[in-house]
Amino acid sequence: MVQRSHVTYFGAGPAPLPTPVLEKAAEVLLNYKDKGIGLCEISHRSPEANDILARTKQALATLLDIPDDYDILFLQSGGSGEFSATVYNLVSIWVEKKRAKIAEEVGDNTDEVLKRLRQVVDEELKLDYLVTGSWSLKASQEASRLIGAKHVNIAADARKANHGKFGKIPSEDQWSLTPRAAGGPALVYFCDNETVDGVEFPSFPRSLEGDDAPLVCADMSSNFISRKVDVSKYAVIFGGAQKNIGNTGIAIVIIRKSLLPPHSTPASPDLLRHLNLSVGPIVLDYPTIAKNNSLYNTLPIFDVWVAGEVMSGLVDSFGAKRIGGQEEVSDEKARLIYEAIERCPDVYRVVPDKSVRSRMNICFRVNGGDADKEKAFLAGAEKKGLLGLKGHRSVGGIRASNYNAVSLNGVKLLVAYLDEFAKSA
Amino acid sequence: MVQRSHVTYFGAGPAPLPTPVLEKAAEVLLNYKDKGIGLCEISHRSPEANDILARTKQALATLLDIPDDYDILFLQSGGSGEFSATVYNLVSIWVEKKRAKIAEEVGDNTDEVLKRLRQVVDEELKLDYLVTGSWSLKASQEASRLIGAKHVNIAADARKANHGKFGKIPSEDQWSLTPRAAGGPALVYFCDNETVDGVEFPSFPRSLEGDDAPLVCADMSSNFISRKVDVSKYAVIFGGAQKNIGNTGIAIVIIRKSLLPPHSTPASPDLLRHLNLSVGPIVLDYPTIAKNNSLYNTLPIFDVWVAGEVMSGLVDSFGAKRIGGQEEVSDEKARLIYEAIERCPDVYRVVPDKSVRSRMNICFRVNGGDADKEKAFLAGAEKKGLLGLKGHRSVGGIRASNYNAVSLNGVKLLVAYLDEFAKSA
Repeated sequence: MVQRSHVTYFGAGPAPLPTPVLEKAAEVLLNYKDKGIGLCEISHRSPEANDILARTKQALATLLDIPDDYDILFLQSGGSGEFSATVYNLVSIWVEKKRAKIAEEVGDNTDEVLKRLRQVVDEELKLDYLVTGSWSLKASQEASRLIGAKHVNIAADARKANHGKFGKIPSEDQWSLTPRAAGGPALVYFCDNETVDGVEFPSFPRSLEGDDAPLVCADMSSNFISRKVDVSKYAVIFGGAQKNIGNTGIAIVIIRKSLLPPHSTPASPDLLRHLNLSVGPIVLDYPTIAKNNSLYNTLPIFDVWVAGEVMSGLVDSFGAKRIGGQEEVSDEKARLIYEAIERCPDVYRVVPDKSVRSRMNICFRVNGGDADKEKAFLAGAEKKGLLGLKGHRSVGGIRASNYNAVSLNGVKLLVAYLDEFAKSA
Repeated sequence: MVQRSHVTYFGAGPAPLPTPVLEKAAEVLLNYKDKGIGLCEISHRSPEANDILARTKQALATLLDIPDDYDILFLQSGGSGEFSATVYNLVSIWVEKKRAKIAEEVGDNTDEVLKRLRQVVDEELKLDYLVTGSWSLKASQEASRLIGAKHVNIAADARKANHGKFGKIPSEDQWSLTPRAAGGPALVYFCDNETVDGVEFPSFPRSLEGDDAPLVCADMSSNFISRKVDVSKYAVIFGGAQKNIGNTGIAIVIIRKSLLPPHSTPASPDLLRHLNLSVGPIVLDYPTIAKNNSLYNTLPIFDVWVAGEVMSGLVDSFGAKRIGGQEEVSDEKARLIYEAIERCPDVYRVVPDKSVRSRMNICFRVNGGDADKEKAFLAGAEKKGLLGLKGHRSVGGIRASNYNAVSLNGVKLLVAYLDEFAKSA
């Protein structure tokens, strides 16, 4: 029988969870706080569920130092559902803003307002996407489905200057962002860490800063709570929970309150359809979710609890350092693995460019991508309890995912194996 | 410390789960099949996850005797997300069918096809809703949001002949279904069991039968796998898992394969927007989910496993009787509770009409809805470990939810308490 302690799991997501959290989870599954019922059974509208929700939000806010003018939402969308939610919600706000402005100019003439609004939408509605890997590509494709390709501006495509492959981030002076003058894009979207391609933004893009900065939406599914984030620079940060935070089942959205009622008003569904845009499902409607404290419909409270336990654990571990403490650990673990890879350049080659290497998903090839060698590498790793190392089918090779619950000791075992395999290769 | 065995939980959902399933869940959470990692951590693309998916589908298919020309999908939508998904998907099929037919008549003239199609959509696109309680009402409202109120036909509103309240189902001769002649509605929607109002369809509506029967979508969130269902009569059956089946986190969709490619083609997103309809998020797109065996994006495999365990347990328990066995048990438990209520007509009154009383959610008032008496009833019940009996805030009073995992013994305890309280009242 293989014990948990025999295994280090480097899977890209779902990902390992801290054993103490799972041990506690196993208990509360049967009986939560001596109520005689378990955590998957209690009502999402019970005081217990409300406490869990509040504690989890508090732990996240503390950890990331989330400003008061941000709200935290939990949805069942998965990260992929948020590709759509960001579009539906931010387009709706953009349209209503334009409508209100035109109505101010034109007055009560509804037909004239609609006519002008249609023209403005046709000419000016743009969503900027920085396509730096498989996931931001998917997000941009989803935006095209929902509102039409003509409204989607691929402000950067990392494949263009890199032989058609992901692995670099074009320098900012090569980006073609929608000018801010005419009100700017409805959103600028990027994926902070590309799980499949092992590409991570080293820092927040400078071109997206400034007093009239556009609304930035960032997918942080695979590097959430792994490093410091200046939340105030983002309109929306989202992430599926199943990598650094908890179970598959919830996505977390951190949203600037100015994008929610009463500060922002969404366009009416009828207006959106009239303008040949799409109305999103109510379960992805941020104002509805926010108004109901994420309890518009049944929320998987067990998954919220797991995320809360994981994050409270980090708050306790790192004290005043908060997420900075986890950042140090993550950086150190990534450094050890990359150094081991670089020690043997004849055997291993990191896939993405050094400037944008992910600290979370370390993608490399063995012997130039020799299929037999890579198979042998994986088989040898498995014998040592180093699991989940196979790269994504679209990239191939090896991928070591270095999420928060991967221990330093597990990383050291991988490093030892990297050295050992290289010697024998 | 309150043990599970001290408590009977009558909550409306999330709902109790079988203790043996939870005990096994507690184990696999830490270590699944001696792999050294737990079930929330393993990849949704692993052979283990595929096995779980296949076994769960098989158990459901066996239990409900699902015909081969149906597919089973798992989504993270919740039941509420399916309100939207049914609309997006079935409208899309309806539109494409009409487009293809017009193109056949008109030939290559795209402008003419679009012109005629727009007219057909304007005049003929109808979705029929049978509004018999809070949930079907919500579903009909969501349809109006997504595609416009003019396309939504409230074929029956149960409040109309019942003093503005739910509690009856109008007889079928009073329904105003969209005529089948012109191709019929894009769907006919009903909620088989209304959790909030305690109203259940006693049987499948006759007006929805026949060779040219319309596409029926039914929400079975709260009576799924509690009675026999002739699946072949439905286009789509859906239900959130958190009542009779498993954890919050997955919704199950049973869909007729003729509604999926290659048998049915969805309309293009551009066309839908052009026609002032909405494009749904990719995570609610049935063809995409079906094509990817429910693994388009990360599926909460743990929740699928729990559902599989619950349903396999029923298959084992009831043998050749399948779901018929559970139906007998459910009916018997409901009968005992309703009889106890009826024994004391001076104290208790069932809320909905006798003809449509739900076997799953038994809604009743104490002393004509006297607030103090109802509080006393709930407090007394709690002392005896009978929990979760408070009615929905919109209906008030008491609601005993009689889901599959509520034991016959628990029901007998409730019956004894009903008798005892009535005597003291």
